Amino acid sequence: MTAKPKVRVHAFGISIDGYGTGPAQSVENPIGVGGMALFDWLFPTRTFERIHGRDGGTTGIDDDFAARGFENIGAWIIGRNMFGPVRGPWPDESWKGWWGENPPFHTPVYVLTHHERAPLAMAGETTFYFVTDGIHSALECATAACGGKDIRIGGGVATLQQFLRAGLIDEIHLAIAPVLLGSGERLFENLDLLKLGFKCTERVATPKATHVIFSRSS
Amino acid sequence: MTAKPKVRVHAFGISIDGYGTGPAQSVENPIGVGGMALFDWLFPTRTFERIHGRDGGTTGIDDDFAARGFENIGAWIIGRNMFGPVRGPWPDESWKGWWGENPPFHTPVYVLTHHERAPLAMAGETTFYFVTDGIHSALECATAACGGKDIRIGGGVATLQQFLRAGLIDEIHLAIAPVLLGSGERLFENLDLLKLGFKCTERVATPKATHVIFSRSS
Repeated sequence: MTAKPKVRVHAFGISIDGYGTGPAQSVENPIGVGGMALFDWLFPTRTFERIHGRDGGTTGIDDDFAARGFENIGAWIIGRNMFGPVRGPWPDESWKGWWGENPPFHTPVYVLTHHERAPLAMAGETTFYFVTDGIHSALECATAACGGKDIRIGGGVATLQQFLRAGLIDEIHLAIAPVLLGSGERLFENLDLLKLGFKCTERVATPKATHVIFSRSS
Repeated sequence: MTAKPKVRVHAFGISIDGYGTGPAQSVENPIGVGGMALFDWLFPTRTFERIHGRDGGTTGIDDDFAARGFENIGAWIIGRNMFGPVRGPWPDESWKGWWGENPPFHTPVYVLTHHERAPLAMAGETTFYFVTDGIHSALECATAACGGKDIRIGGGVATLQQFLRAGLIDEIHLAIAPVLLGSGERLFENLDLLKLGFKCTERVATPKATHVIFSRSS
């Protein structure tokens, strides 16, 4: 019998006013208007460069937090909106994610959707599987596929909220960016992390983000 | 003709999940259950000791932010719940605030309430005036009384939200404490600081709080 994998969230960006996505998500603004600013701490890092197959990038605290998110991860689960801007049934198979031919996951990635689609194998060992029967099913698939490593849950806000409310998340890394988004999707909407057993177990601030780790004692 | 005083907010504490007050406010828990933790950065400071007539206390960034909140302030406006736990009509005049005989304001303090009460002069030049006709009236009184200095708006959340929505605040200092409150009163509920013209103009983190200043460009 194998140990249950940890289910982890990393590099989840929110604004000071609590939004994980700005208003009016679109192809031009995948994280909503102003939303890219949530990741100003992440984009220059060496980890971000590496997962995109490039050299260079900054090191230090921001990079350390970025890097942690890729350590010992055997599978990902992401929401439909993190995968792409297409809504409703897939018109064809042309949309292959925001990330080009070699996406930065390098593991199986389970995409939550209401609309069936055949698995999509990409370069670099990333394969997207489309799961139409909910988060528990996605977690079962990811657990079977993760090879004893941990499972990382990506965005967006709605996906993370579903997993949190169902009590399925073990650890969360939030990066609070020094910006206001004004409106959009709020992470803490109808979500009581305290009641879910989380507490703040680590906090480090850099000029670009306040990094906070929430863990569950149980 | 005198210049319009600046209307400033200082040392307004919120949790990472956005609450300025925890649940179940009471005499025992004036800032709600867990709410005192929002001010762990403030209580040990030299400024906090001084305004309570004591020596000692810590210096440094947390103290600098605490001290700014008392510089050039000619009048305060606070909500009824910041003044005390009494709700509804005043049963008598026995409640004189949370702060003892010599409250830390040392200016006129306008208390927003729906229930009339005679002004209350305390030691140290603090006088509480009870304003029953709303925030604009309170601001007029404070402007007349502030002697050309600025006006500080205190809590709670509902008071600050009223002033913000009415476009009456020039500058806000928020101190984001590394805690979760889970529920209570959320500062950013139906409040779009971006639309109100604010942006983050300063941010400094200490082990106990992330200090953020929002200013309006106009």
